[in-house]
Amino acid sequence: MNEQQKQSLYDNAKRWVLEAGEHIRTKMHQPLVIETKSNPDDLVTEMDQDTEKFFAEKIRESYPDHKVLGEEGFGDDVKDLDGVTWIVDPIDGTMNFVHQKQNFAISVGIFKDGIGEIGFIYDVMKDCLYHAKRNEGAYKNDQLLPALANSIPLEEAIIGLNSTWAVPNKKVDENGIHRLIRKVRGTRSYGSAALEFAYIAEGIMDSYITMRLAPWDIAAGIVLVHEVGGKVTKANGEPINMLDKQSILASNASIHKEISMNYISFK
Amino acid sequence: MNEQQKQSLYDNAKRWVLEAGEHIRTKMHQPLVIETKSNPDDLVTEMDQDTEKFFAEKIRESYPDHKVLGEEGFGDDVKDLDGVTWIVDPIDGTMNFVHQKQNFAISVGIFKDGIGEIGFIYDVMKDCLYHAKRNEGAYKNDQLLPALANSIPLEEAIIGLNSTWAVPNKKVDENGIHRLIRKVRGTRSYGSAALEFAYIAEGIMDSYITMRLAPWDIAAGIVLVHEVGGKVTKANGEPINMLDKQSILASNASIHKEISMNYISFK
Repeated sequence: MNEQQKQSLYDNAKRWVLEAGEHIRTKMHQPLVIETKSNPDDLVTEMDQDTEKFFAEKIRESYPDHKVLGEEGFGDDVKDLDGVTWIVDPIDGTMNFVHQKQNFAISVGIFKDGIGEIGFIYDVMKDCLYHAKRNEGAYKNDQLLPALANSIPLEEAIIGLNSTWAVPNKKVDENGIHRLIRKVRGTRSYGSAALEFAYIAEGIMDSYITMRLAPWDIAAGIVLVHEVGGKVTKANGEPINMLDKQSILASNASIHKEISMNYISFK
Repeated sequence: MNEQQKQSLYDNAKRWVLEAGEHIRTKMHQPLVIETKSNPDDLVTEMDQDTEKFFAEKIRESYPDHKVLGEEGFGDDVKDLDGVTWIVDPIDGTMNFVHQKQNFAISVGIFKDGIGEIGFIYDVMKDCLYHAKRNEGAYKNDQLLPALANSIPLEEAIIGLNSTWAVPNKKVDENGIHRLIRKVRGTRSYGSAALEFAYIAEGIMDSYITMRLAPWDIAAGIVLVHEVGGKVTKANGEPINMLDKQSILASNASIHKEISMNYISFK
């Protein structure tokens, strides 16, 4: 992909993201049809499905050789990341969408041969677009996001961490999580992985830790966080597999290793 | 206090809240002088102090017979709530103020003979004012907030709860908290008690639970939450003492008793 192709891809993706967001805002106050998926807390609405369908159709029409990996099943059965793959979460933070009618995002990451090239995280109700192209910096709307501070003591860090990981659970040793909560300055939880990645990129949180995310939750966020010098791995520091579900540690690089090495222990 | 006096008090308080917020926004990008108070995570800035001083001066000038109870020590040594008392948190969510430059609020509650009459919670950076007069409804900017849904199953509730209360601690049995986290649909943590009260009033969270808040953290929020039919007590359901620090359960009334009775057990 040359520079011109990349720019054109970026421009189209941006237009579709904004168009999808505008559509969500206009439909926002109509009654929702809500279903549950794997468990009663895993919600999906017609809006998730319609929005993903919108992206899948636009992409197939303009880029028939690109693949689509999406949450709601309108994409392809993606077995590898050869070529160009769009990784789409039409509404990241569906629980916020349903309960709060805000604090959710459209997340679109575009990968080429497994490398994140373009990322969009669109906070729909705030009309706030986080976006990045690889090696060209990350932006919040028109504002270039500065590189993350290169030295943050862990005891002064604010980390995104849902309280559920401090409860005995099957994935991570809660005692390490307890030590981490005691160590850091504070924890926050916003309920949208995409937005928590965006907040890391913005430098308003220093780390985000969670134990089970899908590729569409993280694809755009990875591009953004990399552009400001942050690091994204599995919570124990291992590399991410973009075709699988996994734990995540997205972080200011200066505390990434300390968290993954000293506080995270899988069961 | 007759209706006219109450309206005039409300109008003055509102003007001062907006003026203080405007001042904070204009000073926001100057370097901060940050001190720590009781512990390294208990931050205070010149902005907290200057803003409280602003309120104390305005109140004393216009209402020399009113009392001021504030976080930063520019108020009075308040021993009882006889007469009119202004309960002021100049910046609620100082950690967010310092680290995020957003997600903090000015909180002003006005109590008469111990009863909350007027409340303002001002999300300064969003320029969003939550406000209420007793028996006249609660508002978000110009929008009247509807009464809270009168029947929410606990398993579909979203609760504001910081992960720190799921860690073994001196105040509350963490096992009850763990059961609660498992029971509800989700938890969130935003780092400003005043804003979390506002979100309860807005109906975008169903409960907010925490173990140690001061009067200035809760005074305005109590007025707001009452106006939409919500309930505020100590976390175990006991009545609040407005002159003391204490645990808090601010909640949709339909799940308040179930949470306090079945999930909260003090140590």
